[in-house]
Amino acid sequence: MTRFALTIEYDGRPFMGWQRQDHGPSVQQAIEEAIARITGETVLVYASGRTDSGVHALAMRAHVDIEKPIAPFRLMEAINAVVRPDPVAILACEQVADHWHARFSCIARHYEYRIVNRRAPLTWEAGLAWRLAQPLDAQAMQAGAKRLIGRHDFTTFRSVHCQADSPLRTLDRLDVVRTGDRISVFASARSFLHHQVRSMVGCLAQVGLGKWTPDDMTAALEARDRTALALNAPSDGLYFLRADYSDD
Amino acid sequence: MTRFALTIEYDGRPFMGWQRQDHGPSVQQAIEEAIARITGETVLVYASGRTDSGVHALAMRAHVDIEKPIAPFRLMEAINAVVRPDPVAILACEQVADHWHARFSCIARHYEYRIVNRRAPLTWEAGLAWRLAQPLDAQAMQAGAKRLIGRHDFTTFRSVHCQADSPLRTLDRLDVVRTGDRISVFASARSFLHHQVRSMVGCLAQVGLGKWTPDDMTAALEARDRTALALNAPSDGLYFLRADYSDD
Repeated sequence: MTRFALTIEYDGRPFMGWQRQDHGPSVQQAIEEAIARITGETVLVYASGRTDSGVHALAMRAHVDIEKPIAPFRLMEAINAVVRPDPVAILACEQVADHWHARFSCIARHYEYRIVNRRAPLTWEAGLAWRLAQPLDAQAMQAGAKRLIGRHDFTTFRSVHCQADSPLRTLDRLDVVRTGDRISVFASARSFLHHQVRSMVGCLAQVGLGKWTPDDMTAALEARDRTALALNAPSDGLYFLRADYSDD
Repeated sequence: MTRFALTIEYDGRPFMGWQRQDHGPSVQQAIEEAIARITGETVLVYASGRTDSGVHALAMRAHVDIEKPIAPFRLMEAINAVVRPDPVAILACEQVADHWHARFSCIARHYEYRIVNRRAPLTWEAGLAWRLAQPLDAQAMQAGAKRLIGRHDFTTFRSVHCQADSPLRTLDRLDVVRTGDRISVFASARSFLHHQVRSMVGCLAQVGLGKWTPDDMTAALEARDRTALALNAPSDGLYFLRADYSDD
């Protein structure tokens, strides 16, 4: 048995999310079925994060155990050939120690949320960004973002379906960067609650629109109450950027 | 009659190109039919450049004459509402003088060609960039690009279907910029020959792969012979960036 670490890019639009579902296609299923076709083995692929329906990944990490002897490069090329036309690509593949775990060994996760701030509808970016027609004040958004940095009870920013034991998380980075009519929100933490990034971005948008002040962001956090949430940003703009490991 | 200047973004993937065709959808037809539904008028929309099948635009300029009184903002919003689901968006609309012509008043055209230089197939960028699996030397490409700057007979880089009277063109900019595994080629000129940007990029790719030297680029130019061309880069990576006018 050899354990392989995969670095995976995918377009979330056609998928119900990372995790296998009974009711629709998933990235996990697409990769597991590709590996089954290559090796004849029924495998489980574990990811560093389980993205929701419509969420994209630029460098998701995952691991899989395979019995059949195969070189990492061969495995990567074979998955990329077999997984088509699903929009999933293995960017890197390496052999790792048997105790390396994509989810449990991960020490930091990084997301980017992409907003296009303009009146006109999206064309080639449809499903790849959140279009907000009203002008956003990115500086105010950045001031609001700073209120969430640190270790907090993020109950307000957590889906009611979140399965984590604790609502406590340490948010290491939340930065709002504007370039022309593009606004990116960068979020980093050891781990996130379910819907946390989208919920934080939804509230930052309220700040950007002038409907909330940065103080309202603090109040929402301190409320520790899901009903204090302004809105959940749509999945379209969310990208899993990368995962960090102590041995990287 | 009022003349309106439109700034247009489109995803070229579903279209046979800008220009109306008998055998498939075009951007021109999509916009003309949208305006017909709004005004009841049969109009002709003139663009600053006629992009090929599969070529995208971030800010194409065009003009159209409309009899019915309508405010520019109303016209823009109405086209954007009616043109869906076609991936076309009017980014700006303004009233212009009757002698302003999107094509003939244009003094410079700017293109970007996007290359993704990696082994893995594209996911969300499929049809939006040219993937080249072998490593490209962007510095060598830039050296090759410099050989084409200036006023030359670009016959080598011109489609046999090109309808221009003369193969002489003045290339003002051809720059190769690498950021990670992304390479963009920026091209600017008063006007381009048919397929000129894609033909130049195809040859630059040969230089990047080490199959051609910058001297081979000069030789190809001086040959003034289409058969001296290495290859035409695919339409996927080409974006019409913007058009300049002296009154802008």
